[in-house]
Amino acid sequence: MKLILLTLVINLFSLPAFAQRPPAISSPDVHADNSITFSYFNSNAKRVYASGEFLNKPVAMVRDTTGIWRVTVPPVTPDIYPYSFWVDSVQMADPNNTYLFANERFKRSIVDVPGNKPLIHSLQNVPHGKVSYRYYQSTTLGTTRQLLVYTPSGFEANGKKKYPVLYLIHGGSDTEETWTKVGRAHFIADNLIAQGKATPMIIVMPYGNVRPNPMADFTKDVIQDIIPFIESNYPVIKESKGRAVAGFSVGGGQTLNIGLTNTDKFAYVCSYAPYTATDEFKNNFTNWLPDAARINKQLKLFTISVGTEDFLYESVKQNIAMFKEKKLNVEPLIVSGGHTWMNCKLFLANSLQQIFK
Amino acid sequence: MKLILLTLVINLFSLPAFAQRPPAISSPDVHADNSITFSYFNSNAKRVYASGEFLNKPVAMVRDTTGIWRVTVPPVTPDIYPYSFWVDSVQMADPNNTYLFANERFKRSIVDVPGNKPLIHSLQNVPHGKVSYRYYQSTTLGTTRQLLVYTPSGFEANGKKKYPVLYLIHGGSDTEETWTKVGRAHFIADNLIAQGKATPMIIVMPYGNVRPNPMADFTKDVIQDIIPFIESNYPVIKESKGRAVAGFSVGGGQTLNIGLTNTDKFAYVCSYAPYTATDEFKNNFTNWLPDAARINKQLKLFTISVGTEDFLYESVKQNIAMFKEKKLNVEPLIVSGGHTWMNCKLFLANSLQQIFK
Repeated sequence: MKLILLTLVINLFSLPAFAQRPPAISSPDVHADNSITFSYFNSNAKRVYASGEFLNKPVAMVRDTTGIWRVTVPPVTPDIYPYSFWVDSVQMADPNNTYLFANERFKRSIVDVPGNKPLIHSLQNVPHGKVSYRYYQSTTLGTTRQLLVYTPSGFEANGKKKYPVLYLIHGGSDTEETWTKVGRAHFIADNLIAQGKATPMIIVMPYGNVRPNPMADFTKDVIQDIIPFIESNYPVIKESKGRAVAGFSVGGGQTLNIGLTNTDKFAYVCSYAPYTATDEFKNNFTNWLPDAARINKQLKLFTISVGTEDFLYESVKQNIAMFKEKKLNVEPLIVSGGHTWMNCKLFLANSLQQIFK
Repeated sequence: MKLILLTLVINLFSLPAFAQRPPAISSPDVHADNSITFSYFNSNAKRVYASGEFLNKPVAMVRDTTGIWRVTVPPVTPDIYPYSFWVDSVQMADPNNTYLFANERFKRSIVDVPGNKPLIHSLQNVPHGKVSYRYYQSTTLGTTRQLLVYTPSGFEANGKKKYPVLYLIHGGSDTEETWTKVGRAHFIADNLIAQGKATPMIIVMPYGNVRPNPMADFTKDVIQDIIPFIESNYPVIKESKGRAVAGFSVGGGQTLNIGLTNTDKFAYVCSYAPYTATDEFKNNFTNWLPDAARINKQLKLFTISVGTEDFLYESVKQNIAMFKEKKLNVEPLIVSGGHTWMNCKLFLANSLQQIFK
């Protein structure tokens, strides 16, 4: 109670005259049957909707006499879902939820529906790796940039063991935190390594949004700056068999650009729902006459994953056909679902069990 | 442009019928003279205000014909400031700004006004430490909890050097990320270590909000779970001279509770604008008859910092007087300013130059 009072006092410091004192609200509340109640306080709003990737369309929330809007959605499949509120015309994250979708252009929250058995992305009672926030000098971009590095349980910086490295790229307008904050890449790796299904590896999560320069600069940044930074700071396998690249959406397109033009450096290329309507992709692949025999020998895995309800599904199918036509051994993974981070977790869990074997 | 188009396509997926397509907006724009322009798109809102800790009161934003609301605030002192928008009655973070204030109960953004010379919290061209997200088992709380660990540049997990450790606690409703995301504790440490003004140290940033159990549980969690976790996983000095505790607001109160009841374990206690209206504080200190001579000998530094415009200023002054009356050697640091993270950074920079010397 005293904590709540303090919060109110602090909040009131910055309230304009018309502002409302927000009561303490718990939101979201995930129930035992996997239904979810969302709550939001606003005594002036005319209409409030909850919008989320577990819903076909936004659902209206209902206001009680105290100004609290609520809605309970029917049971959903256990997973982690992005959602937001629409308050009159304003889209916003749930102010009572700590867990935010890491993104540059919109503010959404995340609801974790754990279900009654642990999922591959759940925090389980297994040895945990760690995620480190590091800074590297990008000579390509002329700036110091942040990246995240997952090291598995038992990792020793100065030990004899050399680790393979997965370079894992987020989607457009996501950030270097999206693969951990939304994709739970570190928990997926912890769990699969603990189960003996994935090889202990380092996962590097850079920031892929390179603006206003063209996307090709990110390929340079990875090859000329990020890989050398990792390889001079971590005990890693410095050959293509110890390097994989994977990414989602815009990052899935970057994965194809980075991986397929550097098959001497990467033996594993895993592209998730790639967005490929870019100049770099066109320049690299439209008139490409690859030495397919050589590339197929260099690549131990080249996979493209997509959901059938993904708005990029047709484009991805065309790209798969294009790579097949060029005689590359591409392995498609087609699942249900859309252009979502629920599918990203599935794709990653799949890749982690395939690479570095 | 193509990236923007993709963003629009993705956003449109979850838009309710009445929703607006948001244009690409740059906000905030910090100008060379340290004035700041905030921008926000909403063609339906009746009034939009910008509210921030650089302003005495919220300022009205003005709508242009395209539905973009803007305001430019006069030059401010270079620093990092929290701010938010009030859209009709809704407080929200700036949707076009990636940098969010890490907090459980409100959503605000952060604007970095760098000025023309590097500040102590700026990302400078110095050797960088890293911040690792770790998981420890809390036997006290019966759960696995996340904490952040800063290790300085040159740190070797298996080296011979033993490091001192600062346990650094956030404010009420903040999270374990607030000291890095808002307080930039890692950059402050990087810069002061590079300048030779701070001793290379480990900084542990736990999650201090223990609910619904009483605050005393957090003291237990620190002593019985967090310190053992750190001391079995890092090469550290396992004596009081190698341990400091510091914290802000609710965390400042926790700092006093943890530090002053465990002077055998901590030689440095640094409390920033402490909130002390808690049962734990009352139980610990109201009828306390300390062996001041012993405690003063054990403590190498006991400091309480506060700003004169802090809403807790009178309470903090009374506590300083109370500790003085009990003959404890408390060193007050009284500065201008309020109950803000601008002052937190100042207090921390001060402490880092005093501890472990």
